Amino acid sequence: MAIKFAKRMDNIKGSAIRELLKLTEQPEIISFAGGLPAPELFPIEELKEVCVKVLETDGRAGLQYSPTEGYIPLRKIISQRLNKIGIEIGYDDILITSGSQQGLEFSAKIFIDEGDIIICESPSYLGALNAFKAYLPNFVEVGMDEDGMKMDELEKALQVNKNARFIYTIPNFQNPSGITMSLERRKKLVELAEKYNVPVIEDNPYGELRFEGEEIPPVKHFDKTGIVVYLGTFSKNFAPGLRLGWVAASTEILQKYVLVKQGADLQCNSLTQREIAYYINNYDLESHIKKIIEVYKKRRDLMLDTMGKEFPENVTYTYPNGGLFTWVTLPEGIDAAEVLKSALEEKVAFVPGGPFYPNPGNENHFRLNYSNMPEDRIVDGIKRLGKVLKAL
Amino acid sequence: MAIKFAKRMDNIKGSAIRELLKLTEQPEIISFAGGLPAPELFPIEELKEVCVKVLETDGRAGLQYSPTEGYIPLRKIISQRLNKIGIEIGYDDILITSGSQQGLEFSAKIFIDEGDIIICESPSYLGALNAFKAYLPNFVEVGMDEDGMKMDELEKALQVNKNARFIYTIPNFQNPSGITMSLERRKKLVELAEKYNVPVIEDNPYGELRFEGEEIPPVKHFDKTGIVVYLGTFSKNFAPGLRLGWVAASTEILQKYVLVKQGADLQCNSLTQREIAYYINNYDLESHIKKIIEVYKKRRDLMLDTMGKEFPENVTYTYPNGGLFTWVTLPEGIDAAEVLKSALEEKVAFVPGGPFYPNPGNENHFRLNYSNMPEDRIVDGIKRLGKVLKAL
Repeated sequence: MAIKFAKRMDNIKGSAIRELLKLTEQPEIISFAGGLPAPELFPIEELKEVCVKVLETDGRAGLQYSPTEGYIPLRKIISQRLNKIGIEIGYDDILITSGSQQGLEFSAKIFIDEGDIIICESPSYLGALNAFKAYLPNFVEVGMDEDGMKMDELEKALQVNKNARFIYTIPNFQNPSGITMSLERRKKLVELAEKYNVPVIEDNPYGELRFEGEEIPPVKHFDKTGIVVYLGTFSKNFAPGLRLGWVAASTEILQKYVLVKQGADLQCNSLTQREIAYYINNYDLESHIKKIIEVYKKRRDLMLDTMGKEFPENVTYTYPNGGLFTWVTLPEGIDAAEVLKSALEEKVAFVPGGPFYPNPGNENHFRLNYSNMPEDRIVDGIKRLGKVLKAL
Repeated sequence: MAIKFAKRMDNIKGSAIRELLKLTEQPEIISFAGGLPAPELFPIEELKEVCVKVLETDGRAGLQYSPTEGYIPLRKIISQRLNKIGIEIGYDDILITSGSQQGLEFSAKIFIDEGDIIICESPSYLGALNAFKAYLPNFVEVGMDEDGMKMDELEKALQVNKNARFIYTIPNFQNPSGITMSLERRKKLVELAEKYNVPVIEDNPYGELRFEGEEIPPVKHFDKTGIVVYLGTFSKNFAPGLRLGWVAASTEILQKYVLVKQGADLQCNSLTQREIAYYINNYDLESHIKKIIEVYKKRRDLMLDTMGKEFPENVTYTYPNGGLFTWVTLPEGIDAAEVLKSALEEKVAFVPGGPFYPNPGNENHFRLNYSNMPEDRIVDGIKRLGKVLKAL
């Protein structure tokens, strides 16, 4: 007799990215598939000092249970860093989470009953879509152009869908498209969220990795009523293996996230929270980020230059001003998942675009990551991919 | 206009323990409230060496994203340790989780649709009950005696409740009661689970902390069909602040946990997983556990001896053979939450028993923890508590 699982389990499937990462772990494959930072930039030497120091000065607290909300000095650091980019929020309205992925999962748990609507960009981050799906929502996708989510389309979606529960956006160097939302659209987004009383979940893992152009304040900067929930992370500016991110939100909403965190896993790692706080207070995170930007910019330039030379003319792609990804569009009717098979024969990998759309019907795209591979492999890999694309 | 939250949020309230921990953090309060290990036993010096070594030899992988299932060498260590206590399971059927709390939350997510039944011991761990409540189940409580859950009551519950989705048990030194399930009942539990095709969630955070008497194999030892899901943790034998536990289950069921973990937070801390594995492979966890047992046994003896002298005769309590807790029963009609108010005036704290029952009506109990306070404060605190109880 088969064991009965909850209905939501029918809606949860493996993430294509994660399964692919397994396939592409063989060293002979040049993988542009993952969203992995460059490991050679991790501040390993500094962390050795940090770990010893934290255990020496605060080891007992670092190994003991601690409050669900997180380590107060770390929350204060985050609050100060948010103030600098135009978000006025105190440390008590910040919850430490296990990466921003956990903040995404909590968002669906807090806001979504079965059949409710989530409005998202089209395409959108597939890890978020997968987390949301466990709560059995329906998705309404809003198209994007080079300035991000189209606000007229968004307003129509809000007018029609009275059971929309939140709008999910990655405004900076979006995953997967690399697109950044313009200042005007950010203002308009908050205006629409307030008008229709639908919260915005602003996911900003890449905002600090801007290669050029002027910084644009986060969506939450324009939020005067507490309708924007802001998710951040130390995964892209420090190290994803440590699994630390945060939710910043108005008190009423943040309390829901705290309650959900309590049930989910009580709290984040007490020691790692202290280590990151110690690192930021005693080393120079800002120059570390500058170093990351320098390397990633070089890799983006190299990848896009090589694509310009090697890709056929009917294949287009975005020009990201920061972050980790560019988004490639094939002629209509071509299935990127099929192209991947040929690419793997040439020992090069990417993520096909289909899973980045919650609803089916967009198979002619794929995502390329430029942060993880060293320069020579970027050139080599794009040449191989060009060969595959030309043969189509 | 108020923001609309999901229906489940009406069912999630703060854990009384966590809120209390905040109140009792003042150093002048002698707190028997938390479930905290003794921090003076944490292997801080060893961990300093471990952290440096892991960063030196495997730092890049330790700071990078890694597979959802967990670090394979750590999963192999867990598999070997489970084999020793009679659970035959390979590393590939083990998932690393953020404490066993995360395994509890996932269990409800995987098995429970709104209105389904969870069968649990009466009383049961309140952190589990709170995690389960987010999935809107109904609870059926099964009474316990000194041998654990009563199997005749359990069978009746299974006969009547066709929509029972799992049986939740903490067989060793249960939280909060301190009771251990007998060998015979463990066998019977698996027999009933199979007969009614209802999985068992076996939560075993305290099993390694046995002070006396013969070890009893885990419930999962008797499981030949894969109906028992086993949850373990490094919180009580190593350090809770590191937030590492695991789920061990048959392949079909474990795959569901892996999918849910992927959406929840992608993976556990890559570095901490390597640190614990390195510690176990290069230091002596078994003698560390012996040291913990020695200290906790002494504290249990001291607490129960003092209770024998200081508590009035109409107040009874359990005699735990291990773990962290004893469970106190007041005469009927007395509300332990009211007693706590008087206790706090005397600067001593415990957790009132009500929240350990999913359904209301059991207010005349409270839980005492003996692992966290040093010996002199245990004697002093129990004397103060005796005074409060005598004054009732």
